[in-house]
Amino acid sequence: MGSCSATARSSSGSAHVTDGASLTGGDIGESAFEQLWSAIADIGRDPTTGGYRRFAWTEADLSMREWFGGECATRGLDLVEDQTGNQWAWWGDPDGAASAGVVTGSHLDSVPDGGAFDGPLGVVSALAAIDKLKADGFQPRRPICVVNFVDEEGARFGVSCIGSRMITGALSPDRARALRDAEGVTMAEAMRAAGWQPEHLGPEPEVVARVGTFVELHIEQGRGLVDLGRAVAVGNAIWPHGRWRIEIPGEANHAGTTRLSDRRDAVIGCARAVLAARAAAETYDSLATVGKINIQPGGVNAISSSATAWLDARAADESALSATVAQIEREVATSGAVVTEESRTPQTAFDDALVSWLANLLDDAPVMSTGAGHDAGILANAGVSAAMIFVRNPTGVSHSPAEWAEPEDCQAGTAALATVLAELAGVER
Amino acid sequence: MGSCSATARSSSGSAHVTDGASLTGGDIGESAFEQLWSAIADIGRDPTTGGYRRFAWTEADLSMREWFGGECATRGLDLVEDQTGNQWAWWGDPDGAASAGVVTGSHLDSVPDGGAFDGPLGVVSALAAIDKLKADGFQPRRPICVVNFVDEEGARFGVSCIGSRMITGALSPDRARALRDAEGVTMAEAMRAAGWQPEHLGPEPEVVARVGTFVELHIEQGRGLVDLGRAVAVGNAIWPHGRWRIEIPGEANHAGTTRLSDRRDAVIGCARAVLAARAAAETYDSLATVGKINIQPGGVNAISSSATAWLDARAADESALSATVAQIEREVATSGAVVTEESRTPQTAFDDALVSWLANLLDDAPVMSTGAGHDAGILANAGVSAAMIFVRNPTGVSHSPAEWAEPEDCQAGTAALATVLAELAGVER
Repeated sequence: MGSCSATARSSSGSAHVTDGASLTGGDIGESAFEQLWSAIADIGRDPTTGGYRRFAWTEADLSMREWFGGECATRGLDLVEDQTGNQWAWWGDPDGAASAGVVTGSHLDSVPDGGAFDGPLGVVSALAAIDKLKADGFQPRRPICVVNFVDEEGARFGVSCIGSRMITGALSPDRARALRDAEGVTMAEAMRAAGWQPEHLGPEPEVVARVGTFVELHIEQGRGLVDLGRAVAVGNAIWPHGRWRIEIPGEANHAGTTRLSDRRDAVIGCARAVLAARAAAETYDSLATVGKINIQPGGVNAISSSATAWLDARAADESALSATVAQIEREVATSGAVVTEESRTPQTAFDDALVSWLANLLDDAPVMSTGAGHDAGILANAGVSAAMIFVRNPTGVSHSPAEWAEPEDCQAGTAALATVLAELAGVER
Repeated sequence: MGSCSATARSSSGSAHVTDGASLTGGDIGESAFEQLWSAIADIGRDPTTGGYRRFAWTEADLSMREWFGGECATRGLDLVEDQTGNQWAWWGDPDGAASAGVVTGSHLDSVPDGGAFDGPLGVVSALAAIDKLKADGFQPRRPICVVNFVDEEGARFGVSCIGSRMITGALSPDRARALRDAEGVTMAEAMRAAGWQPEHLGPEPEVVARVGTFVELHIEQGRGLVDLGRAVAVGNAIWPHGRWRIEIPGEANHAGTTRLSDRRDAVIGCARAVLAARAAAETYDSLATVGKINIQPGGVNAISSSATAWLDARAADESALSATVAQIEREVATSGAVVTEESRTPQTAFDDALVSWLANLLDDAPVMSTGAGHDAGILANAGVSAAMIFVRNPTGVSHSPAEWAEPEDCQAGTAALATVLAELAGVER
């Protein structure tokens, strides 16, 4: 029986395959999925929290890459690594076909204390879908590929989607090489220590050109499918999003002697900024989060001389995002705070025709956008025909050990993916 | 002309001696004060911030101690160091007199980025007052002592007033030895590295017994004297105060995908706790400050799974302090937060008779309490007759490079101290 056994939560129940699964005309090999899943359950897992710490170019990441290479070899897929370290496992010759390849996959790295599904579900589902197609005797007319993008989360060096950004030219190799982790190690040093040659980093248009269509399967990072009672959805867009730095001034003083009226306490302004962000998100039906705060000097008996709060804001469209940030800016200005944009990514729209075709193919699957960035979005911005498939997450929680998908939903996602690959690679499109 | 030249702020104006200064019948030697002050102006000073970093048992602290020893030798004072490292410089034999000694002084360590006056003003004024008495040909009938208490601020190991707590038995030597600084160095290791023998730490009742009366001069850490238009005040009490840990629960999740209604964001509860503390202090005319916050996991795109805020609260009396904390507890309970008392120090009352006598002697000086802890409070709690003299602080700011006292107010404080020493040590009391 299928069991996504990587989290502490036990799971039982029938492996009844629902939704898109029936489209392939039969069950996915459950034991194959189970085997794939359990092989990586302990890699990079923190025994205390149960969360994963699979950061780029660390031992855990290299173990995941080695596991992936072994599974590809077992299936007779040709593994090619580009200069950035993305792993491409081809079924068929990517350079010898009339049409560019049908690519699926995701990433194998994690955020700090991440869940088991964010990334690996897309890779494991892809390998299991290949198994299903092979078991069915399917012969692809277009080459099929399973990709593992390197450093999608950016947990170690602070910039996400390194692998897809680099090959599409969206990230400068000089900037990437100079990024430093918390210990001061540069990405160049980390890559070299792991056996790679960072001097070869750069755009790789010939690698991108092999991707005719990219469909990334991913655990849903919210409760949209729970509310709809469906197992899978099709992703059509990534919300515009960005990161802002809010700097709140104050005046250092003694917490035990300074009258309230004489204080300029940066922590008070910081607290107001946090609540202003939440209020603005409620006003504009957007998302605004403060997850990182730095207080100076940070002593228990010290009135703070300065505080910095980082704002993550996202919205369904550009105007809602701008309005959200503008409202926060107005509010924090009353504390003398200054807001600086650190990064902003415009809305990413996936290929409309591909999205519609997928939704129709997958039993009229619901179509939804997401606030989270993905390699699929980076490829779409580079002109690749791309879309995503989301798998139901009953907790709605992601980037946490509580992240979860029921075994039958993992099966449904895999079945949907097999259907999509068979349709896309079975005919010239 | 006298000039407290240790801060970046330039100072001018006449050195007219006001207030208590006239009680000694003449000017304090300005050049002596100036010389003492300028000798330590650069020790442990951060060139960027202009603040001081004189932490216990560091090189800066040892330089201050060495300077103090040299100044005592110049004046013919007998320097005795107890086992904790407090430096006692005696004028007269502390064990050969009919009455126990008249002790003044303060401390020479600092908070991070501290001001020039908190601590050193009390030591420098004491030495300058001794100079004045000697120049006047004064012969003490009771022994007089200038003390430098070690590690008053607790900036390095987290516990304040180490020197006075240890000798009075208010701090366990085992606990003290095991305290660690931010680099993980224990106090025992730090003392040993500086040439002391931490195994000898413990109560020293014979050292405390030599202190018949203790009067500590200190810069005011607020604007009480500014508002009153006076240069010096007498301190009669230290407010009850304490430290509480507020732990706010949350649930880790993805900042880019989790709906507002699905969030349990610890940072929101933390912000409410900060504002609740301020509101409670306003309600009860007390002080409540959050100066240190810890957010987990602390990622910009992560909804926080937990937050800890440390509350420093103080009030003029026990009931106001309890009411302040209780109101904060009720408020943060709505976020599911738990409040734990880390430490609480009851009100410290100085010797009433001494306070009245000082106020009368010093030209009807105003009498005021303070929210800050001091070695004088530790000694008072150990049964020593103690009080304080505060010197006007025009900025009202302390624990900051902006801390300041005008040269003429430093002179007034020194003159007041000379008067007090002469009166206390000139007759048997």
